[in-house]
Amino acid sequence: MKVGIIMGSKSDWPTMKLAAEMLDRFNVPYETKVVSAHRTPHLLAEYAESAKDRGIKVIIAGAGGAAHLPGMTAAFTSLPVLGVPVQSRALSGVDSLYSIVQMPKGIAVGTLAIGEAGAANAGILAAQILGTHDETVMAAVEAFRKEQTDTVLANPNPAED
Amino acid sequence: MKVGIIMGSKSDWPTMKLAAEMLDRFNVPYETKVVSAHRTPHLLAEYAESAKDRGIKVIIAGAGGAAHLPGMTAAFTSLPVLGVPVQSRALSGVDSLYSIVQMPKGIAVGTLAIGEAGAANAGILAAQILGTHDETVMAAVEAFRKEQTDTVLANPNPAED
Amino acid sequence: MKVGIIMGSKSDWPTMKLAAEMLDRFNVPYETKVVSAHRTPHLLAEYAESAKDRGIKVIIAGAGGAAHLPGMTAAFTSLPVLGVPVQSRALSGVDSLYSIVQMPKGIAVGTLAIGEAGAANAGILAAQILGTHDETVMAAVEAFRKEQTDTVLANPNPAED
Amino acid sequence: MKVGIIMGSKSDWPTMKLAAEMLDRFNVPYETKVVSAHRTPHLLAEYAESAKDRGIKVIIAGAGGAAHLPGMTAAFTSLPVLGVPVQSRALSGVDSLYSIVQMPKGIAVGTLAIGEAGAANAGILAAQILGTHDETVMAAVEAFRKEQTDTVLANPNPAED
Amino acid sequence: MKVGIIMGSKSDWPTMKLAAEMLDRFNVPYETKVVSAHRTPHLLAEYAESAKDRGIKVIIAGAGGAAHLPGMTAAFTSLPVLGVPVQSRALSGVDSLYSIVQMPKGIAVGTLAIGEAGAANAGILAAQILGTHDETVMAAVEAFRKEQTDTVLANPNPAED
Amino acid sequence: MKVGIIMGSKSDWPTMKLAAEMLDRFNVPYETKVVSAHRTPHLLAEYAESAKDRGIKVIIAGAGGAAHLPGMTAAFTSLPVLGVPVQSRALSGVDSLYSIVQMPKGIAVGTLAIGEAGAANAGILAAQILGTHDETVMAAVEAFRKEQTDTVLANPNPAED
Amino acid sequence: MKVGIIMGSKSDWPTMKLAAEMLDRFNVPYETKVVSAHRTPHLLAEYAESAKDRGIKVIIAGAGGAAHLPGMTAAFTSLPVLGVPVQSRALSGVDSLYSIVQMPKGIAVGTLAIGEAGAANAGILAAQILGTHDETVMAAVEAFRKEQTDTVLANPNPAED
Amino acid sequence: MKVGIIMGSKSDWPTMKLAAEMLDRFNVPYETKVVSAHRTPHLLAEYAESAKDRGIKVIIAGAGGAAHLPGMTAAFTSLPVLGVPVQSRALSGVDSLYSIVQMPKGIAVGTLAIGEAGAANAGILAAQILGTHDETVMAAVEAFRKEQTDTVLANPNPAED
Repeated sequence: MKVGIIMGSKSDWPTMKLAAEMLDRFNVPYETKVVSAHRTPHLLAEYAESAKDRGIKVIIAGAGGAAHLPGMTAAFTSLPVLGVPVQSRALSGVDSLYSIVQMPKGIAVGTLAIGEAGAANAGILAAQILGTHDETVMAAVEAFRKEQTDTVLANPNPAED
Repeated sequence: MKVGIIMGSKSDWPTMKLAAEMLDRFNVPYETKVVSAHRTPHLLAEYAESAKDRGIKVIIAGAGGAAHLPGMTAAFTSLPVLGVPVQSRALSGVDSLYSIVQMPKGIAVGTLAIGEAGAANAGILAAQILGTHDETVMAAVEAFRKEQTDTVLANPNPAED
Repeated sequence: MKVGIIMGSKSDWPTMKLAAEMLDRFNVPYETKVVSAHRTPHLLAEYAESAKDRGIKVIIAGAGGAAHLPGMTAAFTSLPVLGVPVQSRALSGVDSLYSIVQMPKGIAVGTLAIGEAGAANAGILAAQILGTHDETVMAAVEAFRKEQTDTVLANPNPAED
Repeated sequence: MKVGIIMGSKSDWPTMKLAAEMLDRFNVPYETKVVSAHRTPHLLAEYAESAKDRGIKVIIAGAGGAAHLPGMTAAFTSLPVLGVPVQSRALSGVDSLYSIVQMPKGIAVGTLAIGEAGAANAGILAAQILGTHDETVMAAVEAFRKEQTDTVLANPNPAED
Repeated sequence: MKVGIIMGSKSDWPTMKLAAEMLDRFNVPYETKVVSAHRTPHLLAEYAESAKDRGIKVIIAGAGGAAHLPGMTAAFTSLPVLGVPVQSRALSGVDSLYSIVQMPKGIAVGTLAIGEAGAANAGILAAQILGTHDETVMAAVEAFRKEQTDTVLANPNPAED
Repeated sequence: MKVGIIMGSKSDWPTMKLAAEMLDRFNVPYETKVVSAHRTPHLLAEYAESAKDRGIKVIIAGAGGAAHLPGMTAAFTSLPVLGVPVQSRALSGVDSLYSIVQMPKGIAVGTLAIGEAGAANAGILAAQILGTHDETVMAAVEAFRKEQTDTVLANPNPAED
Repeated sequence: MKVGIIMGSKSDWPTMKLAAEMLDRFNVPYETKVVSAHRTPHLLAEYAESAKDRGIKVIIAGAGGAAHLPGMTAAFTSLPVLGVPVQSRALSGVDSLYSIVQMPKGIAVGTLAIGEAGAANAGILAAQILGTHDETVMAAVEAFRKEQTDTVLANPNPAED
Repeated sequence: MKVGIIMGSKSDWPTMKLAAEMLDRFNVPYETKVVSAHRTPHLLAEYAESAKDRGIKVIIAGAGGAAHLPGMTAAFTSLPVLGVPVQSRALSGVDSLYSIVQMPKGIAVGTLAIGEAGAANAGILAAQILGTHDETVMAAVEAFRKEQTDTVLANPNPAED
C-alpha cells in the first residue's frame, strides 16, 4: 500500500471513490477505510501514527462540514496529507473547504477542490508525489495527462457529441 | 475547578480571557490552558478524556481558522463543550465559525459568537449550565443579568456619555 | 419535563424532531411547542419566563431566516438556551446561523449546526448538560457515544453497504 | 413626536445619529432611546406597544450582529418599522443585515443599507412615509432631493475639490 | 390606486403576486405592471415621476440579479419605495438583495426579505404605511396580525397537522 | 470570423451557445472551439496568439470553477477578451466569477454575469464592440434592443401570459 | 473624445483616475464626469443617450454599493459599457460587483475587478476595443503590454527591490 | 534545487518568503522567482516545462486575486504543484483561494491556507513530499514538528508571556 484513502463516513464514498479510481488507473496500490475524527478519534490517531511504518507514503482524507479529519490526520503523522472537502448539504462544501484549508502555521494539508473533481485530483496529486521518486508512476501520470489533452484536441467542436 | 478554558494558541488569550473574566464575576472556579489540536493532539486527547474525572463540568474551547479544538475536544469527552470562534486574519472568523459549528450528527459543540462577545458569552453559558444544579451560580448569573438590564434602563439617552 | 423544544413554525418540525428523537433515546422527558418570536411575542416571553419554575433545565429553540427565537428566549430566561439554525430557502441557513450565533456580549445562545445534524446535536448537548448532574443521563449519552463509535469500527469498508 | 429612533446600544449612536440629523433637516419631531432586545426585552415590548398611542407614526430601529431589535419591535406594533443594520466587527454587518431583512412572512421590516448611509436613508424614508399625508414634510424631502441633485450638477468635475 | 406594484419581468410575478394578495386582503387598491429598468428605462422614469400625481402613495418594486428597478424608481420619485429581492438562479438572491439594499446616502429603498416572504411583507408594510393615516387600513392590518397570532396559539403542537 | 467563442469544456456549451445565438441574430460571423487552459495550455497560447492575424476582433471565453481560460487568453493576445463565468456545481459560479473578474492590473477581462444571461450578454457586448466601427452591426444591436423594449411595453400585465 | 469616464460620486475619483491615467498612456482622448444614477437620473439618461453622437465609442462607469450607474448607462445607450466596482466600506465591493456584473439577459456591462486594478483595466480594455479598429491605439496597448512583460523579466528576484 | 518557489509579483514576497524560510530550516535547496501568469505567460510555460529536467521535485506557486499561476503551472508540468492564496485587498484572499483550489478534474493543485500560514505550510508540505523518499529531510520535518509540540507543552499558561 502506497496511499491511504480515508473518509469520515460511508456517505463520503461516492465522492472519494474517484480518488481510488484514479490510483487504479496509475496502478498505485492503496487502501480505503472509514475513519471518523469525531466518532473514532482513537482510531484516527492510531491510523495516522502507524501509516508511515506500514509503508504508506501519502494519505488522502475526505470529509464534509466541520471537516476535521484531514487536519487531525496531519497532526498525527509526518506524511504528506491531502484533503478533499466533501460537498455538504446546507453550505455546499464551503464549510468543508474552510475547515480543511485554513490550517494554522505548522501543520499542512494540501487541499483539493470541493467534491468529485477534488477527490479525483487528490488521486492524481498523490501519484505525482510518488512519481517524484518512481518513474513508472510518473510515466503513468504523464500518459494520463497526454490522453486527456489528446481527447480535447480531438474533439474541438463544442456542439458535437 | 468546574470549568476548563482551553485555546489553540497564546494568541487566542486576548479573546478567551473574556470567558475567564465572566467566570470570575460568577465566582466559578476554572482553569486555563493552551492545548493545540494540531501541535499537541495527544495532550488534547488526554486533557479531554481526564477532564470529567478531575471534576470539570463544562469545557470552553476557543480557536481560529481551521478551528478543530472544540470539535476534537467534544470527540474525546462526554462533557458539554462550548466553542468560541476566534476572529481570524483573512476570513474574519467565518472559517473559525464554520469549522466549529458545522459538527456532524453525533458530536455536539455549543457555539458562541465570533470573537470577544462569544468568549464572554461562553463564560455566561457555562455558568448557566452549572446553574441548572447550583443555585448560587444561578443567582450570580441572574444578578449579572439584572445589572446589565438596569444599566441600559438607567442610561436611555444614546447621545449622552 | 427537563427540556423544552420550541420552534418558530410547524414547518421547522421535520428538522426539530431530531432533537426530540435524541432525547427519547436518552429517556430525557421533554415538551415540544410552536412559539413564534414574531407572531406570538407574548407567548414567547411567557414561555421563557415560566420555564424554570416548571422544572425545565434547558431550552432548545429552532428557527430559520431572521431567526430571533433562540436569542429572544435567552433574553427572557436565565436557563441555558441552545439554538438550531433551520435551513432556509434562499440563503440555505446562513441567515439563520448568523441571526442565532452572533449574539451580543451579555446574552448567550449555544448554537448548533444548520439543519438536522444541528437539531440532533442540540438533543445530545441538552442531555450532556443534564448529565453534568444526572449520572443516568450521562450514562445514556456515553452508551450512545460508544455505540456510534462501535458502528464505525465495525464497518470500516467504505465501499460496502 | 412623529418618529421613534431606537437602538440596541449606545455604541450604535454614531451610526444612528444620521437618522436624527436627517429628520432635523426635515423638521420632523422625533425621540431617541436605547432599547435592547436582549438586555431589556420588557422595555422593548412596552416601547413598541405604546408607540402608536403616543403619536409615533414610524419607528426606526438600528442594531448590529444578531440584530433582533427591528424585527422584535415589528412583532409588538402595527406601525411601520424601518431597520438599520449597524456595521459589526467580525462580519462587517452582513450578520446585522441578514438578521434584519430576512423576516418571515407576516411581520415586515423595511431594511436600509448597512451603516451610516442606511441610517440617513432611514430618516429620509420615515419622512417620505409621513410625507404621503403631510405636504410640508414632503416638500422638505423634495427640497432636500433637489438640493442634492443640484450639488452633483454644479460639481461635475471629479478631479476638482 | 394607492399602491403601485412593479417588477422587472413577468418571471417575477409568481413572487410579486404575494404582495398583491396581501393588499387584496387589506382591501387596498393597487395596480401591477411590468417595468424594466434595463429594457424600458424611459417607462420607468415616466412611471415613477407620474405616480404621485396619479394618487399612488407607495411603490413596491421587485427585481432579481442586478436589481436596479427599486433604486432607480426611488431616484425618480419622492414617494416611499419598497424593494423586493427576487430569488435569482446562481446567487439565490444575494445579488438581488445587495443591489437593492445597499443604496447610497440620499436615496432610500425599504428592502424586504428575498423571495415570496419579502413580497408578502412588502404588501403588509405598504398597508402599514397607508395605515398611519387611514384607520380602516390599519384595522385591517391589525386584524390580519391578530389572526396569524391566533393561528399559532391554536396550533401549538408542532407534530400535528 | 469576427468573434471567437471558446470554452474550457464541452459541458460549457449549453451555456455558451447563447453567445453564439446572439451573434447569429446580429449576423456576426464567429467560430466556436473547446480550448482548455488546463488540459491544452499550448493550444490556448496558440489560439490566442493567432486570433488577431486570423481577423478575430473579440474573443469570448467561458469557463467554470477555477476559470483560468478568459484571463490566460487575455495574457496571450491584445484583442479584447470577454469572460463568461459558467455556473459551477458546489459554488454556483461564485468561484468562476472571482477567477475571471479579479484580474490584476495590466491584463483586462470584461466579465459578464454568471451563466446563460452572461453568455448572451457576451454576444451582445461583442457586437457592440464591433458596432463601434461597423454600422450594420450597430444597427442590428439597436434593432434587437428596440425589439426587447417593445416586447416589454406591449405586455405590461404581469399576470397575463 | 473617444471614451467617457463617469462615476457616481467624487469619492470614486481616487479609484477611477487609474482608468484616466491608463488612457493618457495610450494617448486616447477621454472626458470625465460625475453622473449619479440615483441623484441625477436625468443627467445619466441624457449623458448616455447623447454619448454616441458626441463621438464617444466606449463608456467606463464606476460606482460602489448598489452600483446602478454602469447598468443604467448601458440601458440608455448601445455603446459598449465597462463597469468598475468601487470598493465599498461594509461589503468591500462585493455589493458593487454583484450590482454591476449580474445584469439580466439583454443589456450587457463588461465588468472589471473591484477597485484600482479594475479601473486601470477598464482603461486598457477601452483602448483594446478602440484598437480593434485603430492601429495606433493597438500599437500603444501592445507597447504597454511588452513593457510590463519586460519589467517582470528584468526583475526576476522577488527578494530584491 | 529541489523546490521552485514562484509568485506572480514582487508584492507576494512578504508572504511567500515564509515558504523559503521553512525550507531553509529543513536544509532543502530551493530557488525563488517572479513568474507572472498574466504578464509573462511564456516564461511560465518555459519555467514549468523545464522544472523537472532541472531537478525540481515540487513547485510552490503563490498568487492573489484571479490567481492563475498555480493552476497554469500545474497545466505545464507533471510535478506536484502547491498553491498559496495570497491575501488580496478587496476580497481578503477568498478570490485567490477559489481561483487556486477549484481546479477541474484532471489537473491538481494542493492548496494551502490564505496568506503567511499557507506559505509556511507550503514549505512544510514540500519537505514532507521530499521526505517520503529522503530520510534526512523527513527527520528535519519531524524535528521541527517535535519542537513546535514541545514549545506548546512548555508554555501551557495562556496569560504568561
